[in-house]
Amino acid sequence: MKVYHYFRSSASYRVRIALNLKNLPHELEQIHLIKQGGEQLQAAFRAINPDGLVPALVDDDGHIVTQSLAIIEYLDEIHPTPPLLPANALDRAHVRAIALQIACDIHPLNNLRVLRYLTNDLKVEEEAKNTWYRHWCEQGLAALETTLNKDARTGKFCFGDTPTLADCCLVPQIYNAKRLKSDLSGMPTLLRINEACLALPEFARAVPEAQAEAE
Amino acid sequence: MKVYHYFRSSASYRVRIALNLKNLPHELEQIHLIKQGGEQLQAAFRAINPDGLVPALVDDDGHIVTQSLAIIEYLDEIHPTPPLLPANALDRAHVRAIALQIACDIHPLNNLRVLRYLTNDLKVEEEAKNTWYRHWCEQGLAALETTLNKDARTGKFCFGDTPTLADCCLVPQIYNAKRLKSDLSGMPTLLRINEACLALPEFARAVPEAQAEAE
Repeated sequence: MKVYHYFRSSASYRVRIALNLKNLPHELEQIHLIKQGGEQLQAAFRAINPDGLVPALVDDDGHIVTQSLAIIEYLDEIHPTPPLLPANALDRAHVRAIALQIACDIHPLNNLRVLRYLTNDLKVEEEAKNTWYRHWCEQGLAALETTLNKDARTGKFCFGDTPTLADCCLVPQIYNAKRLKSDLSGMPTLLRINEACLALPEFARAVPEAQAEAE
Repeated sequence: MKVYHYFRSSASYRVRIALNLKNLPHELEQIHLIKQGGEQLQAAFRAINPDGLVPALVDDDGHIVTQSLAIIEYLDEIHPTPPLLPANALDRAHVRAIALQIACDIHPLNNLRVLRYLTNDLKVEEEAKNTWYRHWCEQGLAALETTLNKDARTGKFCFGDTPTLADCCLVPQIYNAKRLKSDLSGMPTLLRINEACLALPEFARAVPEAQAEAE
């Protein structure tokens, strides 16, 4: 299978982690989000994903799957070992909710196209744009810290002692948060889990700087 | 089970549709997002969802599930009939991707708290705020129109001829788009599916105006 990604895209980073955790052979092809006005917006990539967003997975039969969480759930369904979701329905909902809290409530507000709109269309100054970024990041991650701290299911990772879909989402979001110098001082649990993840080679190989295209 | 919702919240609306499609007995309790500075931000509700967002489901044993898509997947797992996801893994991924395209790429940018930040913190004027809203709505829905038009699996509904998770997300997003007078003239497929959904009593009973708390 082939996965279209961008080395620094948070949603791509999630899928790279999942592919590594599943130990699935795959080819990565970079769609550069900045060069040439954004390769993701050009016809060649839009034919794969009309939404013009990475990541997108194309399997060996040419079937296309878009959206990072849909891709990871798909990988988990067709290659169930090791599982990225717990066996119990309530626990699965808990893990999905963590992933969605990041994917729906934090990340979309900090996406490249959104930050560009703030700058280009709304004429928001650099500092106010960074404050916006940090605001959503810090508010969302603080809520997640509270959720994880009060839940007995939190272990070495977001859920128990093996990585799940939730960790695939957490690590790229912490990466983004640190990159924009968000204040994570009140989030020891998230930072501890992030470190535990990055100590695993499957996570370490997925970080943006480890990609062939890293600049 | 009890579901905390707000009559006009798009994510709550998704869950109301799913509950009706599953024909599950439930109690709705409104958390008013505007009155009293936002009931969702107060300690009583934050004890249920630290993220301060509706919807949240509390089952009869007191277990809490947050995030609309996690709630719907949970309902689908514990009450599989009628199914809201297809049986085949690739098809499931397709339906999830449609839902996530709406839930991650369109809706978060048009959320009440985000529009408030634009107004209060970034001092964006009313018209520019509405342009922002329509921009993300129209861009995202246009991409979805393309996806559905080129996919042979599109039927009376987003996937085939029975409603799925994708339709639970589409209808509330079209409601929002119309409310802010987005231009949907190039999206006949989405409008056709929206109408087919709203002709069903399960969808009609879930619309904001049909809620006891509608203002």
